[in-house]
This record gives sequence, structure tokens and C-alpha cells, in this order.
Amino acid sequence: MKDGRRSSRRQLLQAGAALGGGLLAARAEDAPARLGEPLGPYGERSPFEKAVRWRRDSKTPETGSSFTPLQDSVGTLTPSSLHYERHHSGIPTIDPSRHRLLVHGLVERPLSLSVADIRRLPSVSRILVLECGGNSGSEWAAKTGPDVQRSYGLVSCSEWTGVPLSVVLSEAGLRPGAAWVIAEGADACRMERSLPLAKAMDDILVAYGQNGEALRPAQGYPLRLIIPGWEGNANVKWLHSLKVTDQAYMARDETAKYTDLMPDGKARLFTYQMEAKSVITFPSGGQSLPGPGLYELSGLAWSGRGKIERVEITTDGGRTWVKAALQEPRLAIAFTRFRLPWRFDGREAVIASRATDESGYVQPSREELIAVRGVNSGYHFNGIKRWRVQADGMVTNVEV
Amino acid sequence: MKDGRRSSRRQLLQAGAALGGGLLAARAEDAPARLGEPLGPYGERSPFEKAVRWRRDSKTPETGSSFTPLQDSVGTLTPSSLHYERHHSGIPTIDPSRHRLLVHGLVERPLSLSVADIRRLPSVSRILVLECGGNSGSEWAAKTGPDVQRSYGLVSCSEWTGVPLSVVLSEAGLRPGAAWVIAEGADACRMERSLPLAKAMDDILVAYGQNGEALRPAQGYPLRLIIPGWEGNANVKWLHSLKVTDQAYMARDETAKYTDLMPDGKARLFTYQMEAKSVITFPSGGQSLPGPGLYELSGLAWSGRGKIERVEITTDGGRTWVKAALQEPRLAIAFTRFRLPWRFDGREAVIASRATDESGYVQPSREELIAVRGVNSGYHFNGIKRWRVQADGMVTNVEV
Repeated sequence: MKDGRRSSRRQLLQAGAALGGGLLAARAEDAPARLGEPLGPYGERSPFEKAVRWRRDSKTPETGSSFTPLQDSVGTLTPSSLHYERHHSGIPTIDPSRHRLLVHGLVERPLSLSVADIRRLPSVSRILVLECGGNSGSEWAAKTGPDVQRSYGLVSCSEWTGVPLSVVLSEAGLRPGAAWVIAEGADACRMERSLPLAKAMDDILVAYGQNGEALRPAQGYPLRLIIPGWEGNANVKWLHSLKVTDQAYMARDETAKYTDLMPDGKARLFTYQMEAKSVITFPSGGQSLPGPGLYELSGLAWSGRGKIERVEITTDGGRTWVKAALQEPRLAIAFTRFRLPWRFDGREAVIASRATDESGYVQPSREELIAVRGVNSGYHFNGIKRWRVQADGMVTNVEV
Repeated sequence: MKDGRRSSRRQLLQAGAALGGGLLAARAEDAPARLGEPLGPYGERSPFEKAVRWRRDSKTPETGSSFTPLQDSVGTLTPSSLHYERHHSGIPTIDPSRHRLLVHGLVERPLSLSVADIRRLPSVSRILVLECGGNSGSEWAAKTGPDVQRSYGLVSCSEWTGVPLSVVLSEAGLRPGAAWVIAEGADACRMERSLPLAKAMDDILVAYGQNGEALRPAQGYPLRLIIPGWEGNANVKWLHSLKVTDQAYMARDETAKYTDLMPDGKARLFTYQMEAKSVITFPSGGQSLPGPGLYELSGLAWSGRGKIERVEITTDGGRTWVKAALQEPRLAIAFTRFRLPWRFDGREAVIASRATDESGYVQPSREELIAVRGVNSGYHFNGIKRWRVQADGMVTNVEV
């Protein structure tokens, strides 16, 4: 394995050598030496960088999804400006000095906490992936998007900072019979979800920070829940109420939506858990390789159950699989970037990745997934994603 | 220790309980339920968030420094928009499709690489701190800034993605006598620095990515060097030339600048290495505690030599020190967030932090540092930083 990697590396370098054709010619093209822009209070990205979130055209753009441009991603974090969105009644504009978090229901001491109160409590930070339960849902029906953004872009990874929910609940004091926490957002639809108390007391955060600064409005400013490993919808944004109850609420987003319809006509409820998943981001649908030669295949893997243990890549449609290199540190429930040198020989190739997490769970093929869940689940698609690299270098979906 | 922490935690929670005064009253203040803003292609921060970099007023704002608002930082990353700046002739606007990286001098095969060529090579990602060699330099003379931003803000932490410089140099092939690499930027002053070949072949990156997207222009778009653990100035931005030589260039920024004047009148040259350092960011200069009670002290520690092993905090001017909790994962040469519950009893207190890194190096006091280096070094100040919490809660510098 080690020797194989080294040999591939050497070949890649040799390919690179051929790239140096315009040798030193560039000197003449240097921009004239003139002063650049001054130092500024708040930096923006280069005007040459155009990556944006994508959303379907809609007459009601306050509800829907916008997708992270994974094809442009590098490393393991998602810029906050490009973090995916899934809103149900738009992004509220909240003045943090007027916002309160109510903690009530089966508690000893109901609380009304300001954002300043929350920020004064003990805090923790975690780099965590957040994925919509409906991400890549179009793959169930094989009516998938033409690129990795539109098919897999409802997933992003940030460093979140906040207060353990267990601290807030312990503060209020739980009363006998407490079994669920109903979290409600301050958006117009008062989006709400029911969370089992055991998870609430385990690792959920009341987050106020994202990637080193305050949450962005589209990610729930000034407060949201962050629930490691659970579907995005349950990570209630613009959090303003936590009600402790003895039973679940059976809210809209856990009955009419965010349930998984099985082949027998019954629907699975409360399927919060996200499983291991991966996708190749380069090369991916809509991209084009300029010609035969050596490339670095690259993609992202993650699991709601912990660390990614292994990612294997096939470049021959699944006949053989080889281990990809995994970027360290591999953090639990965070993006793990994987990479593999690959020589494109100018013949059509079907490429795909397969992730295994530390629990031993292996990402299934689409066919294996459908055999168990049928094609009407809608949510929690995590099957292996194949891309076809055509002889001309164009990359497309594999028809299924 | 464990019991001590738990007891402090309980007290903090009890203090928190008192915060719930306005219980449930907030319900009446809820905003009316109306649709929020639509989903958008590129997210911005909340209009209520005002943190910006600070710079001195200047008639030549193309040269100078702008400082990261560390007092507003949460977690361990710095938003790219707020990453510190140190420019010498402004920020050039570079079209990446026209930019080239020249590799020449004592090499077998001189190269002119496009950004696309670079991005095709094997890549790695690392979360790394970047600190100006002159950060907190005003502390030498005790003419320090009034807050942590203006005194310590020339340090930031990002995830950087790029190609190992060793790959690029191996590609070009080194000729006998190769000993240094002269890196030159495409800014108007053609900023250049000499780097020993051993480091160049070790862990330096030719970076094109920052925090999941392309480098920001203020951080060197489209290419810069990232040199783990070495002073920011050597991490040449807008990188356009790497010349392999048999000796250092003795460039302006390694002779007239970025040298350390010792008490005996001699100057230390090539002092690239950054040592262990830490600073309390909350509470810090210019902030104010609203009254006695429990707070979470918080700050950042880092070392150019590896991981932070321990951070101790004093709240009695240095008589006693207690261990702070360190945010995991602790990554080598990255920000480590530390935290400690503290009861402010309404009496004046002098607080400070002291970092120890995995090499065993202990951050010195200002006095210990000055005993060895005098007060004219200018660069590489890493002494312990003390803040005075006044009886009225105001936080100021400690006069020295």
C-alpha cells in the first residue's frame, strides 16, 4: 500500500512536470508594481470567486432549501456564508438584546434567559457536521441533481460553540415525569421538534457561536440547538423555548414531515440518527477533466455515529476498491476529507466512494438501501454515489 | 481537582438561577409571526454583529496592521473576514487565471505553474495559527493597547489547504548546493523572505484554501506560503516566485525588519520560530463585568512548537495558579481555547494565564523575558499578560 501510494505520487509529479510549459514566460505578464487595496475592517472574498448556494426558483423563497457548493469545497470546513439552509418560513431578524430563551414545563424553576445569560454559562466548542434529513433524497427516485451541489449539498461542517443543554436543564431542575424536551424556534411558523430527555442531557448544545463568531442569521442567530449526529431539522434554529414534557408533541415536522415511509406502508417516526455517508466532490457531476493524466480524487465522508474509520474508492464501477488517504485529525461527526491519486487514461470510468465509520457500519449501495427501505422513504438516503467520467472527461450521473 | 471543578460548576448554575428574573415575561415581547427573509445565495452576518478589525489611522493605509477582535472570539477558529492583516504595499487584486508560480534557481526543471496546476497536485489541510512576529510587541515597552484586540490581535487561526512545498520542489528537482528558498510575493513591494531548505522540505504548504474556500485576498489570494509555527511575515502572501539558492537573500524583512535587537546591541536574525503564548480574552481590557458573581474566564493559547499541554490561570496576581479546562481536540500549532469558572467577589483582582506546550516550554513572565532579551527586541513578545479587574468590574491593563 505504502509503496503503491509513493509510486502514484511520483507519477503525479511527473505529470506535473509537463505542466511547466510556459516556463518563465509569465514574468512579462506580471501586473505593474502599484499599491494594492488598503487594510480593511472586514474582509470579503475575491471578486473572482463565485461559488454560491443554489436553490430552486420559487414564488415562496422563504420556504425551501439552499445547497452548499461542495464541488468548490476544500478542506473540511464550510464557510458560514455557504452553509446550507432549510427554512420553513424565512429567516427572522432578531435583536439579541431582546431575545429570550424560555425553559418551562416539568421543571422546578422556569427560566427566561437572555443571550447574555447564556453566554455567561460554561461553554464548549465542537466541529460538527450538520446534514438535512432530506439530503440526497432525490437519489431514492433516481431523479437526482446534475451535480454534487444539487444532489448532496444539504450538508455542511462548522465549529459550533455553546452551552450544554444539560447545564440549562439542570439549572431549571427537572420534575418527576420529565421525558421529552420540546424545542421551538422564533420563526414565523414556530418550528418545533420533540427531543428525548436522554439525548438532551447527553451532548446537545445551545449554540451561539459558529466558526469563531456569532451564528449567522441563516443558521439560527442568536441561538440554536446543535444535536451531534442527528438530522438537521431537529437542530432548531432561532431557539426561544424549551418545554419539558412527559411525551413527544407529534409536531408537524415529526409526523407529516421527517418520517420515513417503509415498503409496508408504515412510516418510521423519530428517525433522528444520521448514518455514515460519503461522496466524491472532485471530479463530480458537471465538472470536466481537461484530458488524460494524473489527478487527485477528493471527497467528503462523515457519520452521525462517530469518526470515519475508512474510505474506499472504486474507479472501475465497483469491481475493485482501494483505500483513500484520510485527512487527520478525524473528528467524530465531522467532515473527513479523503484523497486518492488517480490516472485517468481517457477511457470511460465509473467512480464512487464507500465510507466505514468507527462503529463498523459500512455505507450501503443504493440497491442494498432500497432493498430494505423501498423508494418512498424520502429521508436518510446514504447510498453510495457513483459518477461517470466520460471518455471526453465530462462527469455525469450514472443512470440507474 | 475534579471535585473542585464540579463544585464551581454547581455554584455557577446557582448564580445562573438568579438570572431568570424576567420569567416568562418575554412571551409578550415576541415579534409578531411574519415571514422572515428568503433563502439566499451567500449569507452575511447579523446586522447586530459589529466586530471589526482595528487599525491605526494612517495616511498610508496600504502598509500597516489590522488586528483581530479577540475579545469577541468564541471557539478556536477565526472568521476569514476578521483574520489579522499585515501588509507592506496593499492587497493586490489578482486574477487567478493569469497568476503563475515560478520555481527557478538551483533546480533541474524550472517551472511556471498555474493555480489550476497547483490545485491538481496532492493536497493536505491543517488547522494552524498564524501570528505576526510583532504581535504584542508594544508589551516590551509597556505602551500596550487598551484591549486584547489592539495588544494581542495580530494572531488568527484558520484551516489551510494546499500542496506541500516539498512536492513542488521535488517536481522541479533540486540541484547540488541548494540550501535556501527565496519566496517572493506579487504585491507592489515584492515582499520576499529566505527559508532554509530543511523547513521547505518538511511541512510548509503552498496554500490556496482557507476555512473551506479560496484564500481571502487579504490572506494572499490566490496562493501563499503557510509555514507551521513560524512568524507570519515569512508566510509570503500572493506567492509568485520560489527561487532555490545556496544562501539567504538578506532581504529587507530579515535584516532591517523582523530581527530582534538584544541587550548587547547585536540583533538576532532569522528568528522565525514562534513560542508558546496565551492570553485571557474574557474578561479583558475594556470589558466590564456587570457585578459580582460567577463567570467563565476564557482565553486562547497556542505554540509554534506543537500542542498546548497545560494552561494555568491566576486570579490573585500570580500567587496561586489553577489549571484551566482545555478544549479538545488540542491540535499542534492551533488555537486551544481554555476556560475556568471564577467567582468575582467585587474586590480588585489581577488575572493572567500561563501556557505550557508539549515540548515542556513554559510561557515566561514579562520580567523573565526582559531579563534575557531587554526591551528593544520589538518582535516575539510572549510574556504573561495580566489584566486588572477593578472593584467596579471594569477591566484594564496592569501598569508595569
